[in-house]
Amino acid sequence: MTEPESGAATAPAGTPQLTPTYEGDFVLPGPLDLECGHSLLNPTLHYAVYGRLNAARDNAVLVCHALTGSALVGSWWPEIFAPGAVLSIEHDFVICINMLGSCYGSTGPGSVTPATGQAYGPDFPLISIRDNVRAQSLLLDSLGIRRLRLVLGGSIGGMQALDWAIHDPARVERSVVIAVAPLTAMGLALNHLQRQAIQNDPEWLGGRYLPHLQPRRGLALARQIGMLSYKSAPLFEERFARNPNRNGEDPWGSANEQGGLIGGRFDIAGYLDHQGMRFIDRFDANSYLAILRTMDTWDPLRGAQRPDDVFGRIRSRLSFVGISSDWLFTADSVRKFAETIRAAGVQSDYREMVSDHGHDAFLAEQAELVQLLQ
Amino acid sequence: MTEPESGAATAPAGTPQLTPTYEGDFVLPGPLDLECGHSLLNPTLHYAVYGRLNAARDNAVLVCHALTGSALVGSWWPEIFAPGAVLSIEHDFVICINMLGSCYGSTGPGSVTPATGQAYGPDFPLISIRDNVRAQSLLLDSLGIRRLRLVLGGSIGGMQALDWAIHDPARVERSVVIAVAPLTAMGLALNHLQRQAIQNDPEWLGGRYLPHLQPRRGLALARQIGMLSYKSAPLFEERFARNPNRNGEDPWGSANEQGGLIGGRFDIAGYLDHQGMRFIDRFDANSYLAILRTMDTWDPLRGAQRPDDVFGRIRSRLSFVGISSDWLFTADSVRKFAETIRAAGVQSDYREMVSDHGHDAFLAEQAELVQLLQ
Repeated sequence: MTEPESGAATAPAGTPQLTPTYEGDFVLPGPLDLECGHSLLNPTLHYAVYGRLNAARDNAVLVCHALTGSALVGSWWPEIFAPGAVLSIEHDFVICINMLGSCYGSTGPGSVTPATGQAYGPDFPLISIRDNVRAQSLLLDSLGIRRLRLVLGGSIGGMQALDWAIHDPARVERSVVIAVAPLTAMGLALNHLQRQAIQNDPEWLGGRYLPHLQPRRGLALARQIGMLSYKSAPLFEERFARNPNRNGEDPWGSANEQGGLIGGRFDIAGYLDHQGMRFIDRFDANSYLAILRTMDTWDPLRGAQRPDDVFGRIRSRLSFVGISSDWLFTADSVRKFAETIRAAGVQSDYREMVSDHGHDAFLAEQAELVQLLQ
Repeated sequence: MTEPESGAATAPAGTPQLTPTYEGDFVLPGPLDLECGHSLLNPTLHYAVYGRLNAARDNAVLVCHALTGSALVGSWWPEIFAPGAVLSIEHDFVICINMLGSCYGSTGPGSVTPATGQAYGPDFPLISIRDNVRAQSLLLDSLGIRRLRLVLGGSIGGMQALDWAIHDPARVERSVVIAVAPLTAMGLALNHLQRQAIQNDPEWLGGRYLPHLQPRRGLALARQIGMLSYKSAPLFEERFARNPNRNGEDPWGSANEQGGLIGGRFDIAGYLDHQGMRFIDRFDANSYLAILRTMDTWDPLRGAQRPDDVFGRIRSRLSFVGISSDWLFTADSVRKFAETIRAAGVQSDYREMVSDHGHDAFLAEQAELVQLLQ
């Protein structure tokens, strides 16, 4: 299975990937004060750009990546750049910034904190979506970008796309928010179990593991739990049904000759194990914990008296995209969220992708997404 | 939360529980040859009976329990015995038999095998649903029961209720099969992750842990994963939404003063943790693995040329019950399964429980189930 998953770092097999015009680091000139009350001293944002900023400086687009994605949007979302699609490297200046907390170049739990000279590890503070937006806005300032013709993202990237419209309303012309709404109780439950899987692994060591000795089994299981929520039951049924694992294992037999509790796997189990193993080679357990928390705690209306007090600030046009088979962020919840925002007087439309791919459809069926956005 | 979960050992709070007329063990007079090719030597079936067998011996009913349930059906399904409901302790002779593999009295991985004088542990063989039916039929023989006016069960209990109708057609007058069909790929996936959670726990020791030193964290996580599939997103949303844990933890704060990766829990997380902790005090990890496998491998049509070859043997009337919000065994899959069986010429009807309780509705909303079965 080589197709992308939520926040995959790679593109669908066979799709040409784009090389960024520039990829590098921006170090904030001072501390970033966080909503949680803590701060990060001179945090780094790793970012990539595609195309060139025009003379009028009005062709900038910000793409926000999903949970375990990277700044290399040209690698994981290449069909968005196809001729006539959403973005153009001839005409647009596309920026994608690795989220704080991640392990793809921006400051995260594996980074050394100036305070102690050691990695943050378990002491890495809660970074909110808004904290990310504030840090990213400083990077855009440094690039001389005053306007964004478009901000777009799916999943946790969509959380950022909306928060940009709320917290920097003068800079954003349009936001596209894909497959996201504040997490429901079921979403919070799924994240909680992923966290448990990592923390249960004795190699997590309270978050103080060495980088090359991370809690691999726990992280793999967390990823597998996540995969259930990124895909859909119909997709699994179509692909795997009740087939035995394609490597020849027999679910009615035993993994060893003596018989016993552990049997051969079904195909879906082999697939999930494979996804878990792939993931632990490309992601860090503490980063995973950090970004799950960023996702859990996002709720634009938290502490607000009325939705208007928050959404009434928005000046950009919004488009929301729900995915018919998404059960992590259901189409229904995205549609209702879009309606709440429209009720606050914001110019906002809702579109629905009809797909069996579940939450991942915005990465797995990019051509269909492009069509919907045109 | 004191309500029942799939295969709970206790009744809903406030419902009077019934005391069995007799509770005891039946030891098979010889080996039980299993479908997997192995055998159990003189296995024990623990069972409970309610009411008395009449002189005509035509008032026997068999109830099959769900995944982690026990023989004490009067404790976990009391409303089925309410006046005018499905069963009557005045008129019926109700038998419930603990499944092989379980830890509630029947032979399971924690039992001592005569071959070695040690517990089976990880060497406990795969017990199929049909193996259970064959063992149970020997127990019924010993009680002098030639006819069952009714066999009923939900979830893995429904698998047994159907297999009774297939494999002992002359003995069964009616079967009621609730919230079950062969597991789909999503169901197999959920069971695989639960198995991983247990096997990842170093205290599992390859299945050779001492009874009082079982893999508690892994088993608790497995239970939590299971709970997601027994309940529904609407139920979670109604009860927990995005509320902070009711004990006062703050999801936007940290579990310790220093801040850090681990925050306070949301209410749904506190609920799941509580369910996990309750479970490890009442169930055994190896038994859990054994019964998950029994469930995974059930597929009445496996190896058959045509559905008629299997379902054409059935002589009893069948009733299937689907639950509208069940996503482990969807109402749609139960309905289609019932249709396949009807197409084989079997007298079979389908009824649907409209409930937000998910798979657990047959235990959580017993009065509604009773109404549907009347």
